[in-house]
Amino acid sequence: MAATKEELAAFMTAEFPQSKTVIEAVGDMGATVSLAVGHGELRPGGTVSGPTLMALADTALYVAILSEIGIVPLAVTTSLNINFLRKPAGNGRVIGVCKLMKLGRSLAVGEVSLYSEGSDEPVAHVVGTYSIPPGATPSRPAR
Amino acid sequence: MAATKEELAAFMTAEFPQSKTVIEAVGDMGATVSLAVGHGELRPGGTVSGPTLMALADTALYVAILSEIGIVPLAVTTSLNINFLRKPAGNGRVIGVCKLMKLGRSLAVGEVSLYSEGSDEPVAHVVGTYSIPPGATPSRPAR
Amino acid sequence: MAATKEELAAFMTAEFPQSKTVIEAVGDMGATVSLAVGHGELRPGGTVSGPTLMALADTALYVAILSEIGIVPLAVTTSLNINFLRKPAGNGRVIGVCKLMKLGRSLAVGEVSLYSEGSDEPVAHVVGTYSIPPGATPSRPAR
Amino acid sequence: MAATKEELAAFMTAEFPQSKTVIEAVGDMGATVSLAVGHGELRPGGTVSGPTLMALADTALYVAILSEIGIVPLAVTTSLNINFLRKPAGNGRVIGVCKLMKLGRSLAVGEVSLYSEGSDEPVAHVVGTYSIPPGATPSRPAR
Repeated sequence: MAATKEELAAFMTAEFPQSKTVIEAVGDMGATVSLAVGHGELRPGGTVSGPTLMALADTALYVAILSEIGIVPLAVTTSLNINFLRKPAGNGRVIGVCKLMKLGRSLAVGEVSLYSEGSDEPVAHVVGTYSIPPGATPSRPAR
Repeated sequence: MAATKEELAAFMTAEFPQSKTVIEAVGDMGATVSLAVGHGELRPGGTVSGPTLMALADTALYVAILSEIGIVPLAVTTSLNINFLRKPAGNGRVIGVCKLMKLGRSLAVGEVSLYSEGSDEPVAHVVGTYSIPPGATPSRPAR
Repeated sequence: MAATKEELAAFMTAEFPQSKTVIEAVGDMGATVSLAVGHGELRPGGTVSGPTLMALADTALYVAILSEIGIVPLAVTTSLNINFLRKPAGNGRVIGVCKLMKLGRSLAVGEVSLYSEGSDEPVAHVVGTYSIPPGATPSRPAR
Repeated sequence: MAATKEELAAFMTAEFPQSKTVIEAVGDMGATVSLAVGHGELRPGGTVSGPTLMALADTALYVAILSEIGIVPLAVTTSLNINFLRKPAGNGRVIGVCKLMKLGRSLAVGEVSLYSEGSDEPVAHVVGTYSIPPGATPSRPAR
């Protein structure tokens, strides 16, 4: 790993002070994040808004990538595809489990399953791609 | 049209009071929306955050669909695919131009091009699908 | 399960006689399929063509869905999103492993990881959605 | 333009001799292609198979990119997202109209609308991304 959970948490707090996402774990080409659902994340019907889920998944991908390549702020999302599968619970936390499928020299691709805490049925599934700036060498051999 | 711009604006204000999105125009299987970029929408580097763009595109799709089928709050996003194309300007507004490609009895599909105001090069492009609840008859013949 | 591997193989042979896809396994909301790569599936550089991978993933999704809901020929693909991750081997077989993430009354969503036989690094990853015709009741409670 | 329609047609015939796609027009960051639907492209119900539509869209993107950057065989598809909108006619031709939305130094993004000839309602819509090899300088200023 090129950045620890603690280093990533400090970076996220400094760079994205308004973010409420918590990094639960990183490592092994993946990351787990969580978000406590509050009033600002709800939409009519007492469910979590789609943009909240997209933002959480995007953060999970970003954290998973930075944990492998080190803290390279210039990594940027190039695409994100989300499928909404079930209505999330409006109380409790949402958990995002990210697994990177490819970490190349210029492009990373990963998937994120999002869960309402306590359920093992995903509420949404995301596939995202990130552009990695030149020179940000992956911490493991290209695969 | 099954709902006017004014009816949709009143509905959005009532249901999504925290949304800052402005409906600029609706009609002809489409909608144009705008968002003034403020501090909460920025990310490091002075650009507009990805989730802000996704949320704006989602609203454009929702408004375009409701303008055709009438105000049916139960229409929900089932998927959203975004490609980030260029760095948005951190000042000024973001404009979203939505065009519906299909408006069926149970599924609507549309695309949204997002622009920094004053530029004709899109900053992002979205394709989204919405599930339409049974009985929400489209206002025009199925195509 | 609402259709066995043998029933599905017979159905595929009857309906898609030109398909070379082999059903390896079905069950537990998933399916595994394989395709022997021949001259028709290759493209310049000795790799497997993208459309070949897309077709294999689409078949994996179709077989996984039919194994759950029974042989309902009217299930149709509504969307397919593929990310190409690594160059597939031009010899040997391609394996597609599908897992359904949602099997609702009108919509099914699944993912497929595609591998060159003998490697555990995916060459491509697909998320697809299928529309299920009314009345094709899933074989398990809606989830 | 860095490659004419005639140069592209000769290249496609040489490199993809099995392809039946016809290049109708290229230029202005776009391309139009067509495919005569034959027995091999049909599926049960007399409609055009999904993989046929995906392959046609992929070719449209490839041709549009090569028309701008010149004939660079190493450009490869990195992702493709298709939404199936209407049942294509099983007779006649399918037309693919591609428009590039971004042509950067390392990544191109474009959309393709697919039509049954004679109809102006798209049967499918594709967004695809291509990786462009280093040194393949675009023929126009980066935008």
